[in-house]
Amino acid sequence: MADVAKVVTVIGNSPESFAQAAQVAVEEASKTLRGITGADVISMSCEVADGRITTYRTTVNIAFALERA
Amino acid sequence: MADVAKVVTVIGNSPESFAQAAQVAVEEASKTLRGITGADVISMSCEVADGRITTYRTTVNIAFALERA
Amino acid sequence: MADVAKVVTVIGNSPESFAQAAQVAVEEASKTLRGITGADVISMSCEVADGRITTYRTTVNIAFALERA
Amino acid sequence: MADVAKVVTVIGNSPESFAQAAQVAVEEASKTLRGITGADVISMSCEVADGRITTYRTTVNIAFALERA
Amino acid sequence: MADVAKVVTVIGNSPESFAQAAQVAVEEASKTLRGITGADVISMSCEVADGRITTYRTTVNIAFALERA
Amino acid sequence: MADVAKVVTVIGNSPESFAQAAQVAVEEASKTLRGITGADVISMSCEVADGRITTYRTTVNIAFALERA
Amino acid sequence: MADVAKVVTVIGNSPESFAQAAQVAVEEASKTLRGITGADVISMSCEVADGRITTYRTTVNIAFALERA
Amino acid sequence: MADVAKVVTVIGNSPESFAQAAQVAVEEASKTLRGITGADVISMSCEVADGRITTYRTTVNIAFALERA
Amino acid sequence: MADVAKVVTVIGNSPESFAQAAQVAVEEASKTLRGITGADVISMSCEVADGRITTYRTTVNIAFALERA
Amino acid sequence: MADVAKVVTVIGNSPESFAQAAQVAVEEASKTLRGITGADVISMSCEVADGRITTYRTTVNIAFALERA
Amino acid sequence: MADVAKVVTVIGNSPESFAQAAQVAVEEASKTLRGITGADVISMSCEVADGRITTYRTTVNIAFALERA
Amino acid sequence: MADVAKVVTVIGNSPESFAQAAQVAVEEASKTLRGITGADVISMSCEVADGRITTYRTTVNIAFALERA
Repeated sequence: MADVAKVVTVIGNSPESFAQAAQVAVEEASKTLRGITGADVISMSCEVADGRITTYRTTVNIAFALERA
Repeated sequence: MADVAKVVTVIGNSPESFAQAAQVAVEEASKTLRGITGADVISMSCEVADGRITTYRTTVNIAFALERA
Repeated sequence: MADVAKVVTVIGNSPESFAQAAQVAVEEASKTLRGITGADVISMSCEVADGRITTYRTTVNIAFALERA
Repeated sequence: MADVAKVVTVIGNSPESFAQAAQVAVEEASKTLRGITGADVISMSCEVADGRITTYRTTVNIAFALERA
Repeated sequence: MADVAKVVTVIGNSPESFAQAAQVAVEEASKTLRGITGADVISMSCEVADGRITTYRTTVNIAFALERA
Repeated sequence: MADVAKVVTVIGNSPESFAQAAQVAVEEASKTLRGITGADVISMSCEVADGRITTYRTTVNIAFALERA
Repeated sequence: MADVAKVVTVIGNSPESFAQAAQVAVEEASKTLRGITGADVISMSCEVADGRITTYRTTVNIAFALERA
Repeated sequence: MADVAKVVTVIGNSPESFAQAAQVAVEEASKTLRGITGADVISMSCEVADGRITTYRTTVNIAFALERA
Repeated sequence: MADVAKVVTVIGNSPESFAQAAQVAVEEASKTLRGITGADVISMSCEVADGRITTYRTTVNIAFALERA
Repeated sequence: MADVAKVVTVIGNSPESFAQAAQVAVEEASKTLRGITGADVISMSCEVADGRITTYRTTVNIAFALERA
Repeated sequence: MADVAKVVTVIGNSPESFAQAAQVAVEEASKTLRGITGADVISMSCEVADGRITTYRTTVNIAFALERA
Repeated sequence: MADVAKVVTVIGNSPESFAQAAQVAVEEASKTLRGITGADVISMSCEVADGRITTYRTTVNIAFALERA
C-alpha cells in the first residue's frame, strides 16, 4: 500500500445478491478513483416490495491510494 | 414512510446463500404483515454438517408501516 | 452441544460470493477439526483489481466440540 | 417493574424534532399496549427533500410489563 | 431449525441471580410461544434499594420457529 | 434509490438543538450535492462555555445518489 | 485543552427535549466542576406515563480540565 | 428519578458468581453514595488460578441521584 | 504477565448458571494450557427445551502466557 | 485485586505519542488516587494545527482499589 | 468550530509507530484541505513481513471546517 | 492472500510503547506460524505501578495463510 490511502463510503444496489451489490459499488467508484485496493462491507440491507426483496443493498468502505506529489 | 413503523426480527434459512436466507425471512413475514418497506441485515451465521455449510442463516430487522386509526 | 466447545477464526476467499467464501473457510477447517457445528460471520471484505472485485472474503468464527477425556 | 416485560421496536416520524418523533412512536404504541414504562432511543435518522430535512425519525425500544396469569 | 424463526425481546427479573432472571423471561415467553429453541443475553442490569441489589434483570432475545403454512 | 449512492460525513452546529444541528449539516451539504435522500445520525455532542451548552453538534452520514454515465 | 482532563458521566432529565436534558446535566455539573469544555451524548431514553413521554433523558460524558499543581 | 443523576463505574469481585460480584460493587458504593437507584452491567471477567476460576468480576455503572441545591 | 500471552475462545455449558458455565470452560481449557491467568466473558446464551432453560452457555476469551524460548 | 475497585476516565495530552499521552493521564491521576493497578485505552484522537498533529490525546479508564473499612 | 465541518477518512502508514502513521495521514490531508482541526483514531493495524511488523497503519477521521458562502 | 487464512489473538507487552508491544506479539507469533501477513489492533491497555505506566500492552489479531493440501 502507498504511504497514504483514502476511504470513501459507497452503497451499491443489485436485484440479485449482496455480493453483486458490492460489485456495483466498487465498479462505479472505480470510474472516478484510481488505485482502489479493497473494500470492507459496513452494512447490508434490502428494499422490499410486494412481499419480496427487490433490491439487495451493500454499503462498502472503499480504500484507494493517494498519489503523493 | 407512514408516521409510525414497527420493526420485527426474523431469521431466515437457506441452503444456497445469505441473500436467499434474507429472502425467505421477508417472504414469510409478508404473509402476516402488510406494509413492509425494507429489511436490515443484523447478523449472518451458518449451520455445518459433515464438514460443509448446509444452511445459510440471515437475521433481519423488518420494518412495516403501522396503519394509524 | 457438548459440555465445552472451542472457537477458531478463519478467513475464506472466493471469486464468486460471500457465501462461497464462508464455505471455503468451513471446508478447510473441517480437514483438521472434528465436531464443527456452526459458524458465525464476523466480517466481510473484498479484494479489488482493475476496478472490479476479484475476491470475496468472509471471516467466520467456527465452533467445534471439545471431546472431554 | 413487573416480573417480566417485553420490548418492541417502533419508529416514529416527525417534521419537527427527534424528541417529537420519539413521542409519536410511544403514543402510537400505547394505543395497543398497556403498561409501557419507558423507551430507549436506538437510532436517529432523517428524510431529506429539496435540500432540507423534512422528517426526523427516531427508533425506540419500548418496554411494557407483561401481566402474568 | 425450521426455515424461519422469529425473535422477541423479553426482560426477566429475579431477586436471586442473572441466570434466574433469564429463566423467568423464558418461562413467561413459553406460555404464549411454541417452538422456542434458545435465548441470547442482550444486557443485564440491577434494581437497587437501601444500598443492595434487590432485583437482577436480564434482557434476552428469544428465538422461536415459525410454523409455515 | 439509484443503483449507486455515496455517503459523506458532515458535522452541523446549532445553538438550539440536535435536530437543528442536523438540519444545518444537511442544508450545507445540499449546496454542493444533488440527490440527497437521507441522513443517519452518527453521534451528538455539545460545546460548553460558562457552565452552559452553547452549541449542539450533530454528526450525520448523508447519502446521495450517484448519476451513472 | 489542558494537559489532563477528566470525564464524568451525568444523566439529565427534561420534560421538553433531549437537548434540554443535556443542558440540565451540564448546568448541574458546572455547579461543582470548573473548566468544562464539552459533552458527548452517550445515550438517550424516555420515561413514559399514561401513554406519553413525560421525561426526556440524556446521558452525557462531560470533560473538564484538571488544574495541575 | 431526580432531575439529574450521576454515574460511577465500580468493579466488584466475588468467589461465587457474577451476581454476587455485582452485589459487592453496589454495597461498597452505597457506603459513600446516597440515592442509588440502579446499576447496569458493563462487563464480566474472571481471575483464574490453578486451572479454576477463583474470582468472578463484574463491572457495573451505578446511577445515583444528585440532590440539587 | 509474561512478555507475550495468547487468547483462545472457549464456550462452556452448565445446567445451573452462567458462572458455572464459565467455570466449565476454564477448567477444560486448563487441561491442555498452562499459565492461564484470566478470562473475559464475551457473550452468554441459553438452550431452551420444553419451555425452560436447560443449559446456560458462556463464551469466554481465556488468556495464557506463552513461554518464550 | 481488592474486593472492590473504582474506574475513572482521564484524558492525557502529549506532543509526542499516544503512549506518552496515556502516561500523562496515569501520572496525573496517581497524584490523588492510591492503588491504581491498570488502565484501558478507550479512544485516541489528535489536535491539528498548521497541517500537523500538535497533540496526541489518549482517553483511558483507570482502575484503582477501594480500601474497604 | 465553524457552523459546518466535514469528515474524511484517511489511512496513514509509517515504519515507526502508530502516532507517526497518524501524522502522515494528517500531513497528506492538509495538502488539499484547509481548516483541519482534529483527527479521531478509528483503527490501527500492521503489515508484517519476515516475522516483523514493517508498517504501522492508522486510520483517522479528519474533520475540517467548511467555509460557508 | 491464500484461499484460506487463520486468525490468532496474541497480547504483547512492552515497557516503551503500544507499537513496540504489537511488535513483540508479532515476533513471538512468527516463531511458530508461517505466512503471517498482517495484524489488527484489537485493544490497548497498561499496567501501572508506583503511579506510572510500567508496561504497554497491545492485543492483536494476527492473520496467517493456511497451506492447503
